[in-house]
Amino acid sequence: MNIGKRELTLLCDFYEITMARGYFHSKIKDQIAYFDVFFRRVPDGGGYAIFAGLEQIIEYIKALKFSDEDIAYLRSKGIFDEEFLSYLRDFRFTGDIWSVEEGTVIFPNEPIMTVRAPAIEAQFIETFVLLTINHQCLIATKASRITRASGGRAVSEFGARRAHGPDASIYGTRAAYIGGCSSTSCTIADKSWGIPAGGTMAHSWIQMFDSEYEAFEAYCRLYPSSPTLLVDTYDVLKSGIPNAIKAFKSCLTEEQQKSCAIRIDSGDITYLTKKVRKMLDGAGLTGCKIVVSNSLDEYIIRDILTQGACVDAFGVGERLVTARSEPVFGGVYKLVAVEREGKITPKIKISENPIKITNPDFKDLYRFYSKESGKAEADLITIYDEVIDESAPYELFDPAHIWKRKLMENYTLRRLRVKIFDNGKCVYTSPSVDKIREYCQRELSSMWDEVLRFENPHNYYVDLSARLWDEKHTLLRKKGKI
Amino acid sequence: MNIGKRELTLLCDFYEITMARGYFHSKIKDQIAYFDVFFRRVPDGGGYAIFAGLEQIIEYIKALKFSDEDIAYLRSKGIFDEEFLSYLRDFRFTGDIWSVEEGTVIFPNEPIMTVRAPAIEAQFIETFVLLTINHQCLIATKASRITRASGGRAVSEFGARRAHGPDASIYGTRAAYIGGCSSTSCTIADKSWGIPAGGTMAHSWIQMFDSEYEAFEAYCRLYPSSPTLLVDTYDVLKSGIPNAIKAFKSCLTEEQQKSCAIRIDSGDITYLTKKVRKMLDGAGLTGCKIVVSNSLDEYIIRDILTQGACVDAFGVGERLVTARSEPVFGGVYKLVAVEREGKITPKIKISENPIKITNPDFKDLYRFYSKESGKAEADLITIYDEVIDESAPYELFDPAHIWKRKLMENYTLRRLRVKIFDNGKCVYTSPSVDKIREYCQRELSSMWDEVLRFENPHNYYVDLSARLWDEKHTLLRKKGKI
Repeated sequence: MNIGKRELTLLCDFYEITMARGYFHSKIKDQIAYFDVFFRRVPDGGGYAIFAGLEQIIEYIKALKFSDEDIAYLRSKGIFDEEFLSYLRDFRFTGDIWSVEEGTVIFPNEPIMTVRAPAIEAQFIETFVLLTINHQCLIATKASRITRASGGRAVSEFGARRAHGPDASIYGTRAAYIGGCSSTSCTIADKSWGIPAGGTMAHSWIQMFDSEYEAFEAYCRLYPSSPTLLVDTYDVLKSGIPNAIKAFKSCLTEEQQKSCAIRIDSGDITYLTKKVRKMLDGAGLTGCKIVVSNSLDEYIIRDILTQGACVDAFGVGERLVTARSEPVFGGVYKLVAVEREGKITPKIKISENPIKITNPDFKDLYRFYSKESGKAEADLITIYDEVIDESAPYELFDPAHIWKRKLMENYTLRRLRVKIFDNGKCVYTSPSVDKIREYCQRELSSMWDEVLRFENPHNYYVDLSARLWDEKHTLLRKKGKI
Repeated sequence: MNIGKRELTLLCDFYEITMARGYFHSKIKDQIAYFDVFFRRVPDGGGYAIFAGLEQIIEYIKALKFSDEDIAYLRSKGIFDEEFLSYLRDFRFTGDIWSVEEGTVIFPNEPIMTVRAPAIEAQFIETFVLLTINHQCLIATKASRITRASGGRAVSEFGARRAHGPDASIYGTRAAYIGGCSSTSCTIADKSWGIPAGGTMAHSWIQMFDSEYEAFEAYCRLYPSSPTLLVDTYDVLKSGIPNAIKAFKSCLTEEQQKSCAIRIDSGDITYLTKKVRKMLDGAGLTGCKIVVSNSLDEYIIRDILTQGACVDAFGVGERLVTARSEPVFGGVYKLVAVEREGKITPKIKISENPIKITNPDFKDLYRFYSKESGKAEADLITIYDEVIDESAPYELFDPAHIWKRKLMENYTLRRLRVKIFDNGKCVYTSPSVDKIREYCQRELSSMWDEVLRFENPHNYYVDLSARLWDEKHTLLRKKGKI
């Protein structure tokens, strides 16, 4: 499932090509540009997000190339000259990219990725970079919320049929796994990345047989090691559970009965699972797990668990794979500096809306951890060449309310970004999704619970270094805005 | 952009394979199954939906094939026997499919597609069929709402960077065009289907130059035939518009000045466009169009037009490509009949929730048009072999309130579904997206405005024939539910 095998070079906004021709024919051609990727707020009012999608961006950039067909198409538009088209024929990405790693906990306004490249190249990859990050961060973050709500119970991603096309299912599954899901119904994601795929039967399986019992019996004989029977085709309590108990008892060994399960996909989950648990336990099937599905999300899962529902695992579909409650992750790609003859000139995008004013310059990103608790205490955005002496205290301040200050002492510092491309060459190897998922779990456990809760979270500190703050405000003053 | 060129056979829910093995080893193997695709409600509380996605389903089914890699992956799961795997090696779709055509106006509970095939095959294609229809119907329907709100003004799809992965952008653009958008920013959709791609510059273009005016001037010299200048990088009224006027006047001929445009991507659209229109007109640029973008949807477009905004065209991004206000189209795939030795046995899925009870049997779908108005008056679902005598009046009744009756007279009848696959062979040629889009416009113009309005629409009649109603209620009585 290497996205580079598909010809996606033209999956770009058309303006990237009109601008490219403009840069090509101007003095800007040889200008190096720095673009930051960042987002302004966490969906669903959450306090944190999970970074994902880097592997697909790498595959795309490695494969970037205009085919003869692409060139012919562009020529047919009648606005691109042959000199420019000939340039595109040899177009490759030759720049540098720094990025946080997949699975990292990220916060608004952080430069989670920086692209440094000749202006045309840096501008050209904008659309693909954004759509990949915006999709996978959205789903990984949602999955993280949902798996937190499940309180340690397994959550399986079930959303393929409601996803926004094939990629939304395939890469959505990847992101959901990184964010905390433990399995999926999406077979191709298992084949591609080893994300455990599972699933047992649809209602149609039951209907295809002359009776519910026959359908259950046939299934248990075929898959005796861990059958999950769907018990709500006719009536959960009057038909589904009695038939399931009968089938488990008559087809499975006592050992097998310890790893069987039933699934409920409709009705009042809290009421039904309490009744079902009693019926199963009464029949001696104390090891039989109860799996529930049906339009679940973090809010419903919290509710039914608060009400005492007896659930061992969740299947979560459309509300995860579409991030239904807020399906947009607003990652943006903004020019922060230009470089001519080795000299970096910071750029700022101003706006009447202060939240939309960008942080200028080529930057770096650090995280402070308390040595005492091991927890993350704050992130710091610096200019790229700042050096922080970890042996000395460091004074952080709130960039919007600069009188709010905090002296960091007894801390360790971690640089959050690594180099991905160096002069067009990929210098990074993506870990397996299992490794990314484990790293994400460690990342989450380094955060205070107050940051992770999914309503009214604590506002994690993301501060600017004094040098960066000064530079930003000098630029703002120059633009006449302060 | 043929989806069949990608190996997507395993883009299926895992249970389709576990069930397939179950059918394979049971008497159900040679049983023919009928599955209907339908949806239960229109997103956003709308009154109608637009059908799209058929072409991709056809491409997928034509290409359906388990590769050696797929077989090796399935073998590695340890639960599939060699006899079954050997069967999968030669697996092809051999059944029949009927479907409404893309661009058709569709309503809840209608069998928009029926698959008739050996149980394993019919079950296997479920996930891909649903995810394709659920995605493209969602976006086509949203685009139809948005373009209606724009009152004839052009709407361009701008959402690539916020889409849920590459396909969500590419096929989302296709669906948005079918539903009424007139262009896109997505270059690859233009190359693939000739959906006109356009777009001019990002804020970074402006920032890359030493001044806004230089950036505008460079652009106008490069693209004098129809430049669109982005005027909100610094200050729309104080800087952007004065610089744009100066650039248009100094770089464009009088003829070219008639097809120039400006775009505003932030701020108070209503206020700004009124001021901008006056400034442009005052400078003699009465032909200069005003394009606006920035988190638009049908509600915001209606609002700003009601307030008298001076807008010629809209760019709509994230709220269209993700269908942000309701990003799930709930299409389902339900068993409605089985056939053994030529005899069709209808199947019904019951539920405590009456809206979830399915319409049984192999069916057909018709639309009544008034000969007088030419407008669509009602749809009728029949059993597949019913014949309606168009020369005689036909009595329709509401399936939930059967005392509500309506005698159709002076009507024409149209069968809405056509045959797509016949014994595994595709017998249908997809029209170009332009033809589909034109057909969709004709479909919409055959509907009463009351059905099309986007809040509190008239509930279009979708009735069951008397024979189908009787059969359904006989089955329900047998199941003891009535």
